[in-house]
Amino acid sequence: LSADSLVAGALAGDRRALGRLISLVEDGGPEVGPVMRALYPHTGGAYSLGITGAPGAGKSTLTERLVGRVRADGHSVGVLAVDPSSPLSGGALLGDRVRMQSHATDPDVFIRSMATRGHLGGMSLATPEAMRVLDAAGKDYIVVETVGVGQAEVKVTDACDTTVVVLNPGWGDAVQAAKAGLLEVADVFVINKADRKGVRAAERELAQMLELSPVERKPEIIPTVATTGEGIDALWAAIERHRAAQSDEDMALARRRRIAAEIRDIAIERYRARLEERCAGILDRLAEEVEARELDPYEAAAQLSGATESHRRGPR
Amino acid sequence: LSADSLVAGALAGDRRALGRLISLVEDGGPEVGPVMRALYPHTGGAYSLGITGAPGAGKSTLTERLVGRVRADGHSVGVLAVDPSSPLSGGALLGDRVRMQSHATDPDVFIRSMATRGHLGGMSLATPEAMRVLDAAGKDYIVVETVGVGQAEVKVTDACDTTVVVLNPGWGDAVQAAKAGLLEVADVFVINKADRKGVRAAERELAQMLELSPVERKPEIIPTVATTGEGIDALWAAIERHRAAQSDEDMALARRRRIAAEIRDIAIERYRARLEERCAGILDRLAEEVEARELDPYEAAAQLSGATESHRRGPR
Repeated sequence: LSADSLVAGALAGDRRALGRLISLVEDGGPEVGPVMRALYPHTGGAYSLGITGAPGAGKSTLTERLVGRVRADGHSVGVLAVDPSSPLSGGALLGDRVRMQSHATDPDVFIRSMATRGHLGGMSLATPEAMRVLDAAGKDYIVVETVGVGQAEVKVTDACDTTVVVLNPGWGDAVQAAKAGLLEVADVFVINKADRKGVRAAERELAQMLELSPVERKPEIIPTVATTGEGIDALWAAIERHRAAQSDEDMALARRRRIAAEIRDIAIERYRARLEERCAGILDRLAEEVEARELDPYEAAAQLSGATESHRRGPR
Repeated sequence: LSADSLVAGALAGDRRALGRLISLVEDGGPEVGPVMRALYPHTGGAYSLGITGAPGAGKSTLTERLVGRVRADGHSVGVLAVDPSSPLSGGALLGDRVRMQSHATDPDVFIRSMATRGHLGGMSLATPEAMRVLDAAGKDYIVVETVGVGQAEVKVTDACDTTVVVLNPGWGDAVQAAKAGLLEVADVFVINKADRKGVRAAERELAQMLELSPVERKPEIIPTVATTGEGIDALWAAIERHRAAQSDEDMALARRRRIAAEIRDIAIERYRARLEERCAGILDRLAEEVEARELDPYEAAAQLSGATESHRRGPR
């Protein structure tokens, strides 16, 4: 299928076309630009939720419950489960099939695991692009769930309108969240597995951390038990309150800031691609010279930049 | 103090100079290039260990024990505790003072927390540079401990000669490790907190995962109890075996690969800096046009790239 017919299919809500477009975005090839251009005028209607937190915190189950909540209101939803890339082999370990079996047959729920097949820039770029595919296809809500809490994951949820950070009861989780830079990105905190001991202590600890942090709008803290559904309505209400609390200007400003970051990232990726396509031989030679200590890495990088420029300008 | 005298101080082993050079590297300013050039001829003597794993796995305590082990052999050691940046406020939450108090007064142990003060590229670049500072200062070993297990952290430990991945007993930890792409980067696995239940199960699960993975050299799996020191000698022996098992050619190849990645990253950072310094106004205007849907992000990025190029070539 051509990119044009995939775009037409996605706009008509065809699931196969949606899946293929997201694969295309993951690959990050030359068709991404034209596809994004074609989809872009159709975007802007979806509201996006980011779900992040430590591995094992219960993010997938919570996402499944939130999808159920959104569906109960009759809205359509697209879910992107973003896995960090495996640096050598690539690819997500858990397939889409084991995820969210309760929604597997619902035509208004589109679920997709995403892995970046390459470098760091890939993840933070591919996610907003995949979100745009779902947005253009008319999904009312987009939920982006990350696997971990590294920098790349934090950056991914930064592309969402409301970011939910999932913690568990137990001493130290709030400290870890602060260390991972999550206090600043959370719009709503969830303390999941709230049937365990230590929920009050976790809430208190988190509230203290937030008190010390420079964050202006203090996020709500909602206890949940995702496995039973307890607290999901309260969480949804908190998400809606966060959505309502943002003025149109706030939202526009946040969107412009994200768009600027995306444009910059695309420009940097174009540069990286240029380096990799045209300068591989030069880079190998430079690395050998640096290893032999005939050159230092900075001088080598300056030579590499120069080589890219002259390649770009073409032979003279 | 000038950069020259800081370099002279660091080469003479002055701790204050070392600390100031690492701060300089964290800031990533224009002095980094000249400093790296001056230090580079003095590097190549240190052996580097990366310690990574989930938050709370016991990495800090394990690092403290490994430092004790290295010191018992009479070797000097530099420790870099790499924290992911807090996307808004920046900075490491835990200071150096609370870390590794047992080595705080040892002049042959240099401990430093590092935070990137900015973007993703910063972390993966700043760490090898800080390692080079410690290497030039004559440290026999360099230990790089990460806070989390995100992509950026995995990339950081990729700069080390031997990478140790720390897990805990408990179902799912090996699965999480696989999801985070840790199977491929681990040279040695540690199952820390091995006084808890589930050590054998964790070992078995990990061994099965490794069996399924395409990794050629299967890493050893060492149970430890970092809080008591149990298993630390066995871990050290496994690290030494990994070191001995690499041929000179393997090591040279791995180093060249890392150097090539570093040169490429420096070139990309130079490009990013150029974008941010010279094109901020253009970027704001482009973001507004994209938000108004007069332009799509790809076309905007192409215009931004063009603007960078013409800035670089100067006014015509």
